[in-house]
Amino acid sequence: MISLAGGLPAADSFPVDALRAACDAALRDQPQAALQYGPSEGIAPLRGWIAAQLRAQGIAADPDEVLITSGSQQGLDLVGRVLLDPGCTVLVERPTYLGALQAFAPYGPRFADLAGDAEGPLPPAAGTAARLVYLQPNFSNPTGRTMSEVRRTQWAAALRDSDVALVEDDPYGELWFDAPPPRPLSGRVPGQAIRLGTFSKILAPGLRLGYVHAPREVIAKLVLARQAADLQTPSLTQRLVLQVLDSGILDTQLPRIRALYRAQRDAMLAALARHMPSGVRWDAPDGGMFLWLRLPEDADATALLPQALERRVAYVPGDAFHACKPAPRNTLRLSYATATPQQIDTAIARLGELFATLPSAETAHEPAVPAA
Amino acid sequence: MISLAGGLPAADSFPVDALRAACDAALRDQPQAALQYGPSEGIAPLRGWIAAQLRAQGIAADPDEVLITSGSQQGLDLVGRVLLDPGCTVLVERPTYLGALQAFAPYGPRFADLAGDAEGPLPPAAGTAARLVYLQPNFSNPTGRTMSEVRRTQWAAALRDSDVALVEDDPYGELWFDAPPPRPLSGRVPGQAIRLGTFSKILAPGLRLGYVHAPREVIAKLVLARQAADLQTPSLTQRLVLQVLDSGILDTQLPRIRALYRAQRDAMLAALARHMPSGVRWDAPDGGMFLWLRLPEDADATALLPQALERRVAYVPGDAFHACKPAPRNTLRLSYATATPQQIDTAIARLGELFATLPSAETAHEPAVPAA
Repeated sequence: MISLAGGLPAADSFPVDALRAACDAALRDQPQAALQYGPSEGIAPLRGWIAAQLRAQGIAADPDEVLITSGSQQGLDLVGRVLLDPGCTVLVERPTYLGALQAFAPYGPRFADLAGDAEGPLPPAAGTAARLVYLQPNFSNPTGRTMSEVRRTQWAAALRDSDVALVEDDPYGELWFDAPPPRPLSGRVPGQAIRLGTFSKILAPGLRLGYVHAPREVIAKLVLARQAADLQTPSLTQRLVLQVLDSGILDTQLPRIRALYRAQRDAMLAALARHMPSGVRWDAPDGGMFLWLRLPEDADATALLPQALERRVAYVPGDAFHACKPAPRNTLRLSYATATPQQIDTAIARLGELFATLPSAETAHEPAVPAA
Repeated sequence: MISLAGGLPAADSFPVDALRAACDAALRDQPQAALQYGPSEGIAPLRGWIAAQLRAQGIAADPDEVLITSGSQQGLDLVGRVLLDPGCTVLVERPTYLGALQAFAPYGPRFADLAGDAEGPLPPAAGTAARLVYLQPNFSNPTGRTMSEVRRTQWAAALRDSDVALVEDDPYGELWFDAPPPRPLSGRVPGQAIRLGTFSKILAPGLRLGYVHAPREVIAKLVLARQAADLQTPSLTQRLVLQVLDSGILDTQLPRIRALYRAQRDAMLAALARHMPSGVRWDAPDGGMFLWLRLPEDADATALLPQALERRVAYVPGDAFHACKPAPRNTLRLSYATATPQQIDTAIARLGELFATLPSAETAHEPAVPAA
């Protein structure tokens, strides 16, 4: 089975030796700090490191405005706890990140889809009443798309004229291939934005380490919710990540993983061009892990999945990523994160064969080439 | 400042060298497993280890009935998410664990106090409608008391005749001094019990590792809630704890920390007998970290705290541990977990001096003896 389904980071992207050395140093040099309870907000030097990194991205951030979380998913849950009430409106992209829908749903909001185009989702009409808008402007999950500079400017203006809080979720922003994405949206609406980040995609997800940046009064509420939920992120993983960041690991780690994912994206784009029948469409992502495929209108990606699995290829049908039903049935998410270029070519060839059997599909752009 | 306030484990109870070796081995031998995403239920061998330990305590437990959590506090939160609705009734001891009240409160239950005596809380009258009862039968926080065997038998019979779910929280059960506490209550009402445990008190709290044991259908709901909340407990800390448990560390660690806390409890009991005026009362705990002090009826432990802090001693006033108001004002929680025997004697002598100034206090049992 070749999985193009995962949102997992590539296992060979993990800086195992550096993490092992950092972990050992944390337990050797500061065992009590690594093993005792710590503050619910997270340890001060790690909050400081994150604030400095945010400032470098154009976000006026103070360490007091940073909460360390056990991954971005916990940030989403805490935001839901603190900001949402039953019946309030949450604006989301169409499609949007499934994990955010799952995190917010227990708090009973009404989801409303945003219209969008190739530059990204469009701001809602002036006067739209909503509690918050949830966006992944960079290399989004599931579409891989990035919001343009122009669209960010439009969003910032629209948000400033509204009472809608922005939740900017940016798990993939560092995984750019040719150039960094435009400046974060949250830095353009200070006081109105909550930004979520994670080390899952640039170090390792099993560490479960992320953060929320928000105005102080929001952080205070999130910390109270955090104390009731699980007290704190493990002291050990915080110390370990601080140690590895202080060692300057990102200077080598980020170029390495950008090159890794870029090569895999290139392999997927080449394979798609080679193997897909012409009724199938996609955009080229500029970073991240995902690519969004649109089959002919009358195709059903969920119904096709068993046949893909028979061909030993896994993908994720697109309908689950839609907050508002009915969802289109002809979309699917591909990930180039965990498969090698060779595996990607093989898997896309098999999917191309499958999709060529669709009544509405035309013949492939080029004849399928057997995997070498 | 000498803190008798903390619920913290003694820092010198942490098996630092063993944890460091186990962490290094986990990252050396199975780096992908330690760094990649893992199952929301927790890793299978750790669930198996916990199930085996529960069976040794007389609880029929299967690995499938175990959910790994990021500490007991998360177990409480997930139980609240899954079992509670606004207005439902939760029965609690009086006083009870503050962290449980904080975990359950966001889900809107009504708390009702249980009556109790020296053997522990009394089961409610037959026919009492409640969603769940929350109990810490062993060396409870805040009182240090343990439910007797007879009272456990009464509870098991009462629970079997009711629809009330038992939530048995047992963070301190391994910290017994002379003999293990009676068999867990949860093992006596299979199918009706949710048991919470943690490695915070026997290994280190900064690892944030605990578990829930519950019937399969409850575990399934808890896992769904977990996925929305924060996906999973860090793979690294799970692997690390598994490694250190498999090394047999508890065979040396448990006797070591029992002796440590026992010596500190003995020091506190001796100091109380030596320094407290006769209007002050307490029971001798048989394990755990806490001792509950009752001042004369008209004393106010909250009002006295600033004077205690001026004398450089910290304690926790008892009123916060009461779900139903008005709470008695004359109680306070002392912890012997983190102070040395010498510090404990000094701190209790200072508190004895302070409480001797109360109008209703009588003179000390014995003349105060200066610390050696």
